[in-house]
Amino acid sequence: MFAQIKRILVGRPIATEHQHHERLSKTTALAVFSSDALSSVSYATEAILTILILGGSAALGLSLPIAAAIAMLLLIVGFSYRQTIKAYPQGGGGYIVTRDNLGDLPGLVAAGALLIDYVLTVAVSISAGVAAITSLATNWGFPSLRDHAVEIALVCILIVTITNLRGAKESGVIFSIPTYAFITGILSMIVVGIGHDLVFGAEPVTHSIDPDIPLTGEALSLWLILRAFAAGCTALTGIEAISDGVQAFKPPEARNAAITLTWMISLLVTMFLGITWLAYTHQAVPNEFTHETIVSQIARTIFGVGPVYVFIQVATALILVLAANTAFADFPRLASFLSRDRFLPRQFASRGDRLVFSNGILVLGMFSALLVVIFRANEIAMLPLYAVGVFTSFTLSQSGMVRRHLRLRQPGWLHSVMINGFGAILTAIVLVILMVTKFVHGAWMVITAIPILVLMFRAINLHYRRVAEQLSLSGAILPPELRRHTAIVLVSGIHRGVLPALQYARSIAPDNVTAVYVDLDPDATEKLRARWRDWGCDIPLVVLESPFRSLINPIVRYIEEVETRYGDDVITVILPEFVPARWWEHLLHNQTGLLIKTTLRLRGNVVTSVPYRLER
Amino acid sequence: MFAQIKRILVGRPIATEHQHHERLSKTTALAVFSSDALSSVSYATEAILTILILGGSAALGLSLPIAAAIAMLLLIVGFSYRQTIKAYPQGGGGYIVTRDNLGDLPGLVAAGALLIDYVLTVAVSISAGVAAITSLATNWGFPSLRDHAVEIALVCILIVTITNLRGAKESGVIFSIPTYAFITGILSMIVVGIGHDLVFGAEPVTHSIDPDIPLTGEALSLWLILRAFAAGCTALTGIEAISDGVQAFKPPEARNAAITLTWMISLLVTMFLGITWLAYTHQAVPNEFTHETIVSQIARTIFGVGPVYVFIQVATALILVLAANTAFADFPRLASFLSRDRFLPRQFASRGDRLVFSNGILVLGMFSALLVVIFRANEIAMLPLYAVGVFTSFTLSQSGMVRRHLRLRQPGWLHSVMINGFGAILTAIVLVILMVTKFVHGAWMVITAIPILVLMFRAINLHYRRVAEQLSLSGAILPPELRRHTAIVLVSGIHRGVLPALQYARSIAPDNVTAVYVDLDPDATEKLRARWRDWGCDIPLVVLESPFRSLINPIVRYIEEVETRYGDDVITVILPEFVPARWWEHLLHNQTGLLIKTTLRLRGNVVTSVPYRLER
Repeated sequence: MFAQIKRILVGRPIATEHQHHERLSKTTALAVFSSDALSSVSYATEAILTILILGGSAALGLSLPIAAAIAMLLLIVGFSYRQTIKAYPQGGGGYIVTRDNLGDLPGLVAAGALLIDYVLTVAVSISAGVAAITSLATNWGFPSLRDHAVEIALVCILIVTITNLRGAKESGVIFSIPTYAFITGILSMIVVGIGHDLVFGAEPVTHSIDPDIPLTGEALSLWLILRAFAAGCTALTGIEAISDGVQAFKPPEARNAAITLTWMISLLVTMFLGITWLAYTHQAVPNEFTHETIVSQIARTIFGVGPVYVFIQVATALILVLAANTAFADFPRLASFLSRDRFLPRQFASRGDRLVFSNGILVLGMFSALLVVIFRANEIAMLPLYAVGVFTSFTLSQSGMVRRHLRLRQPGWLHSVMINGFGAILTAIVLVILMVTKFVHGAWMVITAIPILVLMFRAINLHYRRVAEQLSLSGAILPPELRRHTAIVLVSGIHRGVLPALQYARSIAPDNVTAVYVDLDPDATEKLRARWRDWGCDIPLVVLESPFRSLINPIVRYIEEVETRYGDDVITVILPEFVPARWWEHLLHNQTGLLIKTTLRLRGNVVTSVPYRLER
Repeated sequence: MFAQIKRILVGRPIATEHQHHERLSKTTALAVFSSDALSSVSYATEAILTILILGGSAALGLSLPIAAAIAMLLLIVGFSYRQTIKAYPQGGGGYIVTRDNLGDLPGLVAAGALLIDYVLTVAVSISAGVAAITSLATNWGFPSLRDHAVEIALVCILIVTITNLRGAKESGVIFSIPTYAFITGILSMIVVGIGHDLVFGAEPVTHSIDPDIPLTGEALSLWLILRAFAAGCTALTGIEAISDGVQAFKPPEARNAAITLTWMISLLVTMFLGITWLAYTHQAVPNEFTHETIVSQIARTIFGVGPVYVFIQVATALILVLAANTAFADFPRLASFLSRDRFLPRQFASRGDRLVFSNGILVLGMFSALLVVIFRANEIAMLPLYAVGVFTSFTLSQSGMVRRHLRLRQPGWLHSVMINGFGAILTAIVLVILMVTKFVHGAWMVITAIPILVLMFRAINLHYRRVAEQLSLSGAILPPELRRHTAIVLVSGIHRGVLPALQYARSIAPDNVTAVYVDLDPDATEKLRARWRDWGCDIPLVVLESPFRSLINPIVRYIEEVETRYGDDVITVILPEFVPARWWEHLLHNQTGLLIKTTLRLRGNVVTSVPYRLER
C-alpha cells in the first residue's frame, strides 16, 4: 500500500544507466539555478526600506545609494565566481573549494553555513511567495487570506518536496515558464514604470490603511545605514547555486555555466536597481497593517489592479516557490558530498528510485517546514538569520581560490589572485557587518548553530573512521572452525507455528536444544507443560520465573547462564514467528519478538527467525 | 536512557505477587470512582442554562423543574445500578452485563459507546477544570489566561496520564483530598447561600462585561425544553463507574460498592439541585464574553473574591482533573476485558511494570488530547457529543438485567424486574431524546462512530479466531526431519564483520553456501572480487545486477531461484550485522538490514543475524 502511494507521488523508478541524460540546457539551467537569486529582488528592496523607515521618511532616499553599493558587490562576487567555475568544472560549491584549498575545518564551516542557508532559502522564499499571493488577495477584497499564510506555505513546501523527489529533468520543464514570466513581468514593470514617470511624472502609492511612517525617527546614524545595507545583502543569496551545480549543465559544462552566471547577474542587478528606483519615485513603503509587498504596491500603481498586475503577482509567487527549489537542488547535493566524505550519514549519498538524493530532499523539506511554523510564515522576521551563511561561504571559498592560484601559478594567476582576493576581502567585510548588525535580531542563532554542526560532522567522521579501522582485514585471522552448536528456542506456547522452529533447532544442534518459556500466568504454564509431552519433539522445556512480568530480563539471564556453561559452543537463539496474512493484522500481535531480537543482537547473540505463514 | 526516563516518570516495577494488595477503602473509592459523577455538577447547570437562554430570560426559570426531573432520573438509575452490583460482584460494567445477558452484538455496542464516552469524560472534565481556573484568573485580573486554555489542558492530561501509569493505590491517596474539598466547598456554598438568601434575600450576579441575554428569544417550545433536559443529562455521566470497578473495593466488595454508590447519588442530587437553585435565585447566566463559569459566578457573589471563593474554584478544578481520572481507571479496564475476549489487540490485556493496563492509559491520553485540541478546550462545545454513549450503555445493561432476572428467577425476581425494567425504559426514552435533540450539534459523530467501532471489534475477533484455528495442533502432524541445509550469506563488502557470518554459514550448511552481493557501484564490485579470493573462506561469491539501484528486488529474485533449484533443502538467509558501541551510532548505518529481514520474514524465509560487536 505504502509502495503504491509512493509510486503515484514519486513516479516509476529510473534505471541507473539513464543517469547522465538528466542534463540541463542553459535556458533551463537559468530557470532551475537562478530562481533563488532572481526572486530575492522581490524582498531585498523591502528589507532595506524596513530598516530605513526607522530613521523616518527622510531616510528612505538612502535606499538608492545602498542599492547601488549592493549592485557593485553583486558584480564583484559574480565575477569572482566565474573563476571558480573555470577552476572546478566538476562543480565547485563553497564546501569543495574551501576544503580542497584551506583544509577540513574551514571546509566544514562553509558546509554548515550553507546547509543552514539552504533551509532558510526555502522558508524565506516560500513565505515571500505566499506574501505575494496574499497581497493580491487583499487588493481583490480578500484580506483574510493572510490569516492562512502558514497553511498555504506548508502546502507549497510539500508540493516542492514531492516535485523534487520525482527528479530534476521534469523540474526544469515545470520551472522554466514561471522564471521567464517573472523576468518578463518585472522588466516590463521597470520599462513601463520609468517611461511613464519620465513622461507623466510618478504618482505616489495609495494604501487602504496608511502605514505608520515616523516623520523623524532614530538619528540617521552610520549604524542604521549599515543595518539597511546588511538587510539588502539578501539580494546576493543564491548566486553561488550555479557554481555548485556545474555538472548539471550540458557539455561543455564549465563554459555553459559561466555564460549562464553572467546572464543571471545582469538580470539580477537590473531588476534590483529598477525596483528600488520605482519604490523611491512612487514612495512605496512597507505597510505593517496590510502586509502588502513593495512589488505589489509598485505594480498596481503602475498598471492598476488589472491583468498585468495579476500576472506580476502570480509570477512573483511562482518564482519564489521555484527559488525554494534551488535549495532542493543544492542541499541534497551538498549533503551527498558531505556523506561521501563521511561527515554525514551514508544515507545522504545514495540515490533513490528517481536518481535524486531523496533523503536530503526530505530532511530539507522537514526543517524548512519547521522554520515556517516557528516564524509564522513571516519572511521579514526570518531575514536577520539569512545571508550570514552564504557570506561565510563566499569569504571562505574566495580565500580558497586565492590560495589555489598562489599554489598552482597557472598562466594569468596574478590577475586571478587579484579578482578573488578582492572578492574575499570585500565579502569578509560584509560578513562582519552582517554578523554585527544582525546579531541580536537573530543572527546569533546561526552563529551558534554553525559550530554545533561542525562538531557533529567531526563526531560522525570519527565514528566512521573507527568502524573502518575495526573492520579492516589487515592483520585479521580467519575465525576458528565452529565447535558444537547449542540452540535455544524461545516459545510463547505450543502451536503449529512453533513446530518448524523446534525441528530447525534439532537439525542444527542435534544434541543440545532447549525450549524456553517465560511464566507470566501459572494457569497457562500448567497447560503448556501438559501439552509439551505430546508435541515437544523430545526437547526439554525450561520455564523461567518472572516476578515483575518482564519477558526480556529472564531470557537474558538464562542466555548468560548457558554462555557460561557451554562457553565453547556457538549459541543460536531461535524465534518462531507467525506471519499474518494481512498487513493490518501485524498490529494485533505483540511486538515483543522485535524487542527480544533487538536486545539479543545488541548483546552479540546469533538470532534466527523461523517464520510460519498463515494462509488467511 | 529511555529506560531511565521511564523509571523516573513511572517508578520502579511492582512484583505480580503484590497485585491483590492494591485495593481501595470506601472513602478512597468514593474519591477515585465518584469524581466523574460529582464533578459534572460544575457544568450540568450551565449546560441547561446555555440552551434555555435561547428562549430569553423568561425561560431561565424552567431550569428548576428540568433539574428536578434529572434528579429523579438520577435516583432511579442509581437504584437500578445497586441491582447490578449485587448480581455482578466481580464487576459488572455495561459491556459485561450486556454481553452476558443479551449476547455479543449488544455487548459490543455498549462497549463502543462506553469507550467513546470515557475519552469525552477526560476531554470535557479537563476543559471544564481549566475553565474554573481561568474564571478565577479573570476575577483576579488576568483574563488573558483564557487564551492558553488548550496548553493548560494538555499539560493536565499529561499529568493525569503519568499518575495513572504509576498505579491505582497512590492515585487514591493523591485524589481523596480534592474530592472531599470539593464536596465541602459546594455543600458550604449551598448552605451559606440558601441561608443568606432566606435572611437577607439573594443579590444578582454582576458581570465585568454583561452577557447578551435576549429578552424574548425563540418560542418556548417543547423542543427547547427537551434540548435543555438533554443538555442537563450530562449530570448522569460517571455514575456507572462504581459498578464497573467493584473488584477494586476491599472485601466484602459488593456491599462496600453498593454503600459507596448510595453516598455518591445522595451527594450528587444535593449538589446539582443546590447549584441550580442558587443559579436561579442569583440570576447567574452563561457569559459568552468572560467565559466565567456558573459556579464561579455564584461563589463570588456569595463569598466575595476572597479565600473561600479561591478554595471552591481550586477544588472544582482539581476534582475535574480527578474526574478525568475515573475514565483512566475505566477505559483501560474495559479495554482489557475486550482484549481478553479478543475484540481488541492483546496488548491491552497485559499489565505494565506498575500492575496497571499501561496501553489503555496511553491510548486514552492520546485520544482525549486530540479532542481537546480539536475543540480548543471548550467543554460546552463538546457536551452535545457527551452522554449519548453512557445512556446507550445504561439502556442496554438495564435491559440485560431484566433478561437475567427473568432467566434466573431468584427470590424477589419480580421486584428486581420492575426496578431494572423501569430503569431501562426510562433511560431508553432519554437516549432517544438525547440522540434526536443533539444530533445536528455533534451527536451524529458518536452515532456513526459506534458502529465503526463495533465493526472493528468484530474484524479483530475474526482474525484471532482464524489464527487460533490455523495454529491449532488438532490434526497436526510433526513436520518431517529436516533435509540438507542451504545457506545464503548476504554481504555488503568483505571486512571483519563478515567473517563470523561466513564461518557460521559453513558450519550449518557445509556443502552448500553461497555469498550474495548486489552490484550498486561497478568499482566497489571489482574491489570486492579481488579481495574475496583471499578472505572468502572458499565460499563462491554471486554478484547480482541491480539496474534500478534496489537492494531488495535482486535478492528476492535470487532466493526464488534457489528455492526452485534446491526445493527440498532448508534455506537459511544469513545476515552479517555489526553492532556499534554507542546508541546514536546506529542512526549512521543503513537501515536496509532491517528492511531486508522484514521482507524475507514476510516471504516465510528463515533469517539468521550474525552480529559483530564493535568495541569503540
